[in-house]
Amino acid sequence: MRTTTGWQSTHGSTALEQVPIQRRDLRPDDIAVRIDFCGVCHSDLHAIHAGGAAVGSPDASAGDGAVVPGHEFTGTVTEAGSGVSRFRAGDRVAVGTIVDSCGACPMCRAGQENYCYEFPLLTYGGLDADGSRTQGGYSREYVLRESFAYALPPALDPAAAAPLMCAGITVWEPLRAAGIGPGSRVAVAGLGGLGHLAVRFAAALGAEVTVLSRTADKAEGARALGAEGLLLTTDASQLDAARERFDLVLDTISAPHDLAPLLRLVTVDGTLSLVGFLGELPVNVMDLMAGRKRLTSSGVGGRPQTAQMLEFAAEHGITAQIELLPSAKVEEALTRLERGDVRYRFVLDLSDLG
Amino acid sequence: MRTTTGWQSTHGSTALEQVPIQRRDLRPDDIAVRIDFCGVCHSDLHAIHAGGAAVGSPDASAGDGAVVPGHEFTGTVTEAGSGVSRFRAGDRVAVGTIVDSCGACPMCRAGQENYCYEFPLLTYGGLDADGSRTQGGYSREYVLRESFAYALPPALDPAAAAPLMCAGITVWEPLRAAGIGPGSRVAVAGLGGLGHLAVRFAAALGAEVTVLSRTADKAEGARALGAEGLLLTTDASQLDAARERFDLVLDTISAPHDLAPLLRLVTVDGTLSLVGFLGELPVNVMDLMAGRKRLTSSGVGGRPQTAQMLEFAAEHGITAQIELLPSAKVEEALTRLERGDVRYRFVLDLSDLG
Repeated sequence: MRTTTGWQSTHGSTALEQVPIQRRDLRPDDIAVRIDFCGVCHSDLHAIHAGGAAVGSPDASAGDGAVVPGHEFTGTVTEAGSGVSRFRAGDRVAVGTIVDSCGACPMCRAGQENYCYEFPLLTYGGLDADGSRTQGGYSREYVLRESFAYALPPALDPAAAAPLMCAGITVWEPLRAAGIGPGSRVAVAGLGGLGHLAVRFAAALGAEVTVLSRTADKAEGARALGAEGLLLTTDASQLDAARERFDLVLDTISAPHDLAPLLRLVTVDGTLSLVGFLGELPVNVMDLMAGRKRLTSSGVGGRPQTAQMLEFAAEHGITAQIELLPSAKVEEALTRLERGDVRYRFVLDLSDLG
Repeated sequence: MRTTTGWQSTHGSTALEQVPIQRRDLRPDDIAVRIDFCGVCHSDLHAIHAGGAAVGSPDASAGDGAVVPGHEFTGTVTEAGSGVSRFRAGDRVAVGTIVDSCGACPMCRAGQENYCYEFPLLTYGGLDADGSRTQGGYSREYVLRESFAYALPPALDPAAAAPLMCAGITVWEPLRAAGIGPGSRVAVAGLGGLGHLAVRFAAALGAEVTVLSRTADKAEGARALGAEGLLLTTDASQLDAARERFDLVLDTISAPHDLAPLLRLVTVDGTLSLVGFLGELPVNVMDLMAGRKRLTSSGVGGRPQTAQMLEFAAEHGITAQIELLPSAKVEEALTRLERGDVRYRFVLDLSDLG
């Protein structure tokens, strides 16, 4: 085994502690990655509070609740297994939320490892084949199969690119599934880690983008990201005026909320895609009926889509707008994220772990 | 005013009484239709029990609960207003659930009168511009604007064609919206008035059709309608084997039910369309996420789609499989429908009203 250092939560605490953690010895198709930068995702908070269970994981119990979060990171290959063909030491790579999958089910065969019938192996909190639980990217080293790592395009800043690997692909997938392009109208609800990247991607795809917000103070930031403007969801007249205006409402709000006002903004045969809240919500079928509106969701993306997203990001110069902190300040990042005090994504610089 | 005869429910009773009812004098663009045949729709039962409020109507209160149901009928034009151009006395026509709309909103202008912003005027239980409440097709005569009547194709039997005007268009719309055609796989949940027409339309569109049922006794009927077979939803192994098999699951079940098992049958980017139950249901976003599945609904169709559906039905010889009863047996029809004892649609023969 290999030993590295990581930031671990126990008992649901956001005061993470620096601990030694172990990575497996390299298999022939493995690479070892020195983690340089890791984004701080809202689902890391969920996992911490849930005692280590990653969002969407069927493995609800995680023993003592110990978790090393982190599932969007960039780093540098330090070692490659004997059978590795795509990478060598020194290469910049990016890793997201999935580090393995069954490879045999219809979803994996279709390049949709994110919907693997056996459930994909998550970057942290997942149950690996050897019975160990994966530990995430708030650490200095990660070992994974080369086929689940992505070459980081040289055009992208490694720190600001880290959030592309979860937040980025999470919003890219619904934009592409809805066929968004020039002439499309997209509304983005929630302007956080996911939402701000949704605005950038949608605008780069050629869409007219509107940010939906309860407060007007986000208007300037929204425009700076490429939005045409902001629609105040607390203003009934603005909502009425935008009735059935949008081909896609991309909802990145992480708390449960009423879908009816958002569905009214969706055009006939348009889509409300929920990527922020993944629990149970009441839906009135009448709100879907009046306009054949589609309610959907998606979870990150398969490998082909993730590679495509990185390529598009490099081509259009899209990265996250980040606040970079030394990893020792991870508690500050988590507590400020919890109260929404970040524009728009924290990224940890892991170089302080040596 | 013109006087005719109809079957009226009061106080939620399915023991309808024969009463005189009034129709307006013909406006220049009106036609008078002698109603020959009227289908008995599940939503008629809802309206009776709801004291006259038609499903989806924003006019929840209907006074004393008096309602003359019926919104899928065929008949013969007896008189035409001075400005009528499309019909003349003797023409066979078909009328559905909508008899007028605002004509000015974006939906009406797009030929989607069914989603009219002012709410379309329903064939019964709707509040007409003159303040009167519309009374439906369980009667001998109806007066409406010619533009909301459809020429009945001569190839179609007038009795068996009546249910096309609600049940038919209700299932045609989601099939067309989902792009169903040769090579598509469609599952139909619920084999009643809507479901059996869904099987016929989907099969005629070239799809491979499966009926989802809790009981195996519907298998023979399903095949006779054009389905490849029946999937027993009480059999976990059959459900597992059909995981993500269908491009469209068309759900015609009229009672609230769990959507999770149906969503598992939907393929990636596929659709679960709810057209039987139009209330509130809990939806777990995770069930949509795992496969970017779409939950949707639709309500009948606009005029262009309705005309297209009739044309397709005539071309492919599609009508409902009906049990024809004299209108005096309307109580029998309603009570048997209530317990699901009909294959697959009751139609009332109104000629007994003179």
